[in-house]
Amino acid sequence: MSVLPQVQACFDSQGLMKTFGAVMTEGEGGRCVIEVPFDDKLCQQGGLFHGGLQASIADAACGHAAYTLMPADHDPLSVEFKMNLLAPAKGELLRATAQVIKPGRTLSIVTCRVDVLRDGEFHHVAEMLATMFGKAPRGDKA
Amino acid sequence: MSVLPQVQACFDSQGLMKTFGAVMTEGEGGRCVIEVPFDDKLCQQGGLFHGGLQASIADAACGHAAYTLMPADHDPLSVEFKMNLLAPAKGELLRATAQVIKPGRTLSIVTCRVDVLRDGEFHHVAEMLATMFGKAPRGDKA
Amino acid sequence: MSVLPQVQACFDSQGLMKTFGAVMTEGEGGRCVIEVPFDDKLCQQGGLFHGGLQASIADAACGHAAYTLMPADHDPLSVEFKMNLLAPAKGELLRATAQVIKPGRTLSIVTCRVDVLRDGEFHHVAEMLATMFGKAPRGDKA
Amino acid sequence: MSVLPQVQACFDSQGLMKTFGAVMTEGEGGRCVIEVPFDDKLCQQGGLFHGGLQASIADAACGHAAYTLMPADHDPLSVEFKMNLLAPAKGELLRATAQVIKPGRTLSIVTCRVDVLRDGEFHHVAEMLATMFGKAPRGDKA
Repeated sequence: MSVLPQVQACFDSQGLMKTFGAVMTEGEGGRCVIEVPFDDKLCQQGGLFHGGLQASIADAACGHAAYTLMPADHDPLSVEFKMNLLAPAKGELLRATAQVIKPGRTLSIVTCRVDVLRDGEFHHVAEMLATMFGKAPRGDKA
Repeated sequence: MSVLPQVQACFDSQGLMKTFGAVMTEGEGGRCVIEVPFDDKLCQQGGLFHGGLQASIADAACGHAAYTLMPADHDPLSVEFKMNLLAPAKGELLRATAQVIKPGRTLSIVTCRVDVLRDGEFHHVAEMLATMFGKAPRGDKA
Repeated sequence: MSVLPQVQACFDSQGLMKTFGAVMTEGEGGRCVIEVPFDDKLCQQGGLFHGGLQASIADAACGHAAYTLMPADHDPLSVEFKMNLLAPAKGELLRATAQVIKPGRTLSIVTCRVDVLRDGEFHHVAEMLATMFGKAPRGDKA
Repeated sequence: MSVLPQVQACFDSQGLMKTFGAVMTEGEGGRCVIEVPFDDKLCQQGGLFHGGLQASIADAACGHAAYTLMPADHDPLSVEFKMNLLAPAKGELLRATAQVIKPGRTLSIVTCRVDVLRDGEFHHVAEMLATMFGKAPRGDKA
């Protein structure tokens, strides 16, 4: 598994991902994986990974997964996403794994599961279903 | 408008909100407003407020709006949220305004609009519809 | 308030709306209202309007609301919708009121509230947030 | 595969499912499958299965999948659902296949894929992510 150069470049240009200490470990073929190690600065009131952080990482994974199937000069933009939080996100590492389920010329539909690593095992903590838009150069946002 | 003490305390204990430089300006009566000034570290690839950042602030606003109507010893947790991104989030300040539309003993349904301040005017850039859970002390997460 | 002719024609060509006994009472200017009287054949196990029926009417209202702002030769298609059920849908009439919050050349974002008429008053029972697509003639679905 | 008696009874008591001509073919162990044959009375303007019909069947499949893991005296109610429409739902039969991904004492999270049978093959046309609530006898809706 590897990361396409334009996908890595897009990811690297996002201040928010740097702020989170996030790393992309896969990004090709309609699939993307992003990981972020635990840090107090990413938590909600109970010391768990914040739901917003989970959504941010999952949204980014969905966008880049969609981007792997778009022309490199397109700009992947989120139309919408919906996330269910399934269990307390307590652990050393958060991992979002996105997979395009329907690529398209304009719209791509992507699912993403979020897991936390705790005591050596990954636990499923959130699930996202999202719609991404590929903006053509000079094209207009829908 | 003011912020209830337990709502402020909950917000202050969240590392992610500090990381974002977010401030709560209202938090009572089923309503909550959170603002965050622009910073490069909160951006996506095009220099706009990241969609994940918008979702994080909107989720937090929804959770605290729900919390204003719960007993103070309950813990507000997100069950799920769905956000539509409506327009490029370019501006000096992001504001999330959440309003409970259906309070409940266990579940609260909340809407949130996200605006950016640009050239002296607020522009509607995102909309969220969310479900929040009030976890009773010693109670179990559903 | 009235209904644009192309919007009425689109609605009238939908078998499902006939099956439900649904009537469109408004359809112009980014707004659409659809009503359906109570019938046992539209219920869930407790004798309430079925959640699926509510979603169908709300989805149709969102699609036609978006269509009021599109060229008449476009075909309004649902990209996705999310609905929260807020309270038991018990009553004599169900009404879905949709309003476009962001029109667009390709995508329109629409909200819809669903109310039931019971004992002479409307009660808010569901809320939808949806994305609609305007398919150009001979164009391809995204 | 079979259908638990209380799940079949719940399904049989729903007028809307009869109106659709829907049949439950699996309903146990956190999984549920519902099928509905094509009929003009279930269509949208283009002669495809209506998105609202797809949502109704998927919502019902999610609710009954959740019910298979609840005490039989509980009442499965939809909190919310979100559905993406992936492709034109043209075919002879619609099938919704739901799977609980997180069971819970109060809330269950369920995914559902919707396929249509066309020319002897199933095609993936929609995807749902939903939250279900198990209402205890005499209990109150959240």
